[in-house]
Amino acid sequence: MASSDDLSGRLLAGERAALARLISWAENSDRRFPAALSSVYGRVGRAWRTGITGPPGAGKSTLVNELASTLRERDRTVGILAVDPSSPFTGGALLGDRIRMEDRTLDPGVFIRSMASRGSHGGIARATVDACDVMDAFGFDEILVETVGVGQAEYDVISAADHVVVVVCPGAGDGIQAMKAGLLEVADIIVVNKSDVPGAERLAMDLEEAVHLRTAGPRHVAAWVPPVVQCSAAKAEGMEALLDAVARHREYLQGGELEATRARKRAEQVQRVVSERLSEALWGELGYGALVKSFLDAGSTPYDVASDVLSRVLAGVPVAASGDRAGETGASAS
Amino acid sequence: MASSDDLSGRLLAGERAALARLISWAENSDRRFPAALSSVYGRVGRAWRTGITGPPGAGKSTLVNELASTLRERDRTVGILAVDPSSPFTGGALLGDRIRMEDRTLDPGVFIRSMASRGSHGGIARATVDACDVMDAFGFDEILVETVGVGQAEYDVISAADHVVVVVCPGAGDGIQAMKAGLLEVADIIVVNKSDVPGAERLAMDLEEAVHLRTAGPRHVAAWVPPVVQCSAAKAEGMEALLDAVARHREYLQGGELEATRARKRAEQVQRVVSERLSEALWGELGYGALVKSFLDAGSTPYDVASDVLSRVLAGVPVAASGDRAGETGASAS
Repeated sequence: MASSDDLSGRLLAGERAALARLISWAENSDRRFPAALSSVYGRVGRAWRTGITGPPGAGKSTLVNELASTLRERDRTVGILAVDPSSPFTGGALLGDRIRMEDRTLDPGVFIRSMASRGSHGGIARATVDACDVMDAFGFDEILVETVGVGQAEYDVISAADHVVVVVCPGAGDGIQAMKAGLLEVADIIVVNKSDVPGAERLAMDLEEAVHLRTAGPRHVAAWVPPVVQCSAAKAEGMEALLDAVARHREYLQGGELEATRARKRAEQVQRVVSERLSEALWGELGYGALVKSFLDAGSTPYDVASDVLSRVLAGVPVAASGDRAGETGASAS
Repeated sequence: MASSDDLSGRLLAGERAALARLISWAENSDRRFPAALSSVYGRVGRAWRTGITGPPGAGKSTLVNELASTLRERDRTVGILAVDPSSPFTGGALLGDRIRMEDRTLDPGVFIRSMASRGSHGGIARATVDACDVMDAFGFDEILVETVGVGQAEYDVISAADHVVVVVCPGAGDGIQAMKAGLLEVADIIVVNKSDVPGAERLAMDLEEAVHLRTAGPRHVAAWVPPVVQCSAAKAEGMEALLDAVARHREYLQGGELEATRARKRAEQVQRVVSERLSEALWGELGYGALVKSFLDAGSTPYDVASDVLSRVLAGVPVAASGDRAGETGASAS
């Protein structure tokens, strides 16, 4: 059985099989993952992480493929993570989409990986951040995180990225639907894909108007107004314009919020891990499940039962003293 | 300011304004909600809760509208909850869909309410269960929970229901897309809406085949095979067939898993409340956020920091003794 030291050593030596294995460890909540991440964590933080999301059928996979080609022409190495948070059942389907990218896997400057939710609530967002960290430590210049953008879970996934490209197209997944799905809210850059299809121009105009309505309110002027870029990924058109928009947003981030945002996202990752492990402990080894069942059977409401559980749990939890140093708590629970 | 006693009394007296107010309390995590729920909890459990989900554009709202009409013809009272878990930004859009149902609000046997996520992670699923409980206590015979079915958050929402109707239609949101979105996995009944549109017959056949592939594996035979029902909600056709399928599934549930499933869902609701409140306590009043920040700034990985936090938190948490009775812990944290 591989130890975490073996695997992190092989990762730093550039072995792709080690990279794939470490991502599987993250995905499966393998107990060896935290130690492996610690060994390589000094190398994390150099890659740009770009989220790419949009409704089904908008052409995200094709766009990611073309984007990777264009980045490779610029000598940037690319790690691609396709995440499907919707359900365990869909893992295979999304993997199917990737078959057409197979030729690209012969290029050592590109790494492609799919991940699907295994039903662990919130676990997929945690695993996405982990996978990005590992690809970052491996040394990729660019990490592209692709997800179907529709719900809360997908937002959590996409929040692993430094910035987000939202892809829409004329027709089925049109502008109004994108707005209904809340996609514009997370967009740093908006792409109207399939720009050769009728209605693309109109959709781009509508989206520009919607963006301006949102960013130029009477009470504030947004520092960044998401640009609307038209392209046709299937015809490999518009990729340069898209990468220019991405580059402008990176300059904007570096001029301000990048470090603070990354620090906030690391803290959110801590909260995810704490939340997962607390749930495991309470409903597993500490045995609160049976207590809950007996209270519920006696007719208590979920809130009353939760209060009972919380009064027991929180009674023993000390107030944090932030002056403490990490060294003091070496006897950690990991 | 309304007290929880006032409001629960008015709810039991049949006042719709009290119902609306209590749902708002659930939605906003108002501290008065748990006591109000306790006062009316003895009346919870009589309504049937049916989830209705499907991809955007499948015609869910129209179907819910027609279903409500048909149920009213059968003298059943109906509470409708339209939940949009995707984002705060979309609340208005979903509400817009409901305008055409406005005439129905003149009927005292129907109550319609929309809820959107306010960004609270997982909070919308908890609030959905709360809202169903309150509508149930109010006395509705049928509760219809409608949500756009695509991601993990939507599954959590729909899990408030006793059973789930998945709505798809030919064209844009076709069968393959529905499968990719993992919808079939949660379906107890599948509706092919817009049955007059070309491709509906073929889609229904494909879905029946997919259902049989899933339910008739070599290692097990499923006790319930989701039926595929064709209808045209816009033409008010097929509603009787759909309600017949719903009735058959209810008989199936009552013959077996209904009580156990409802008990499991109540336990999941407890876990949601515990998880929300533990997070509030840790990152709020107990001050673990500052500790996390100082550790992260010192270069620890999210896992190492989480382990430090967990070693402090779990050190004080007692193992649950399930023999305890609820009465002993009257000094609860609520």
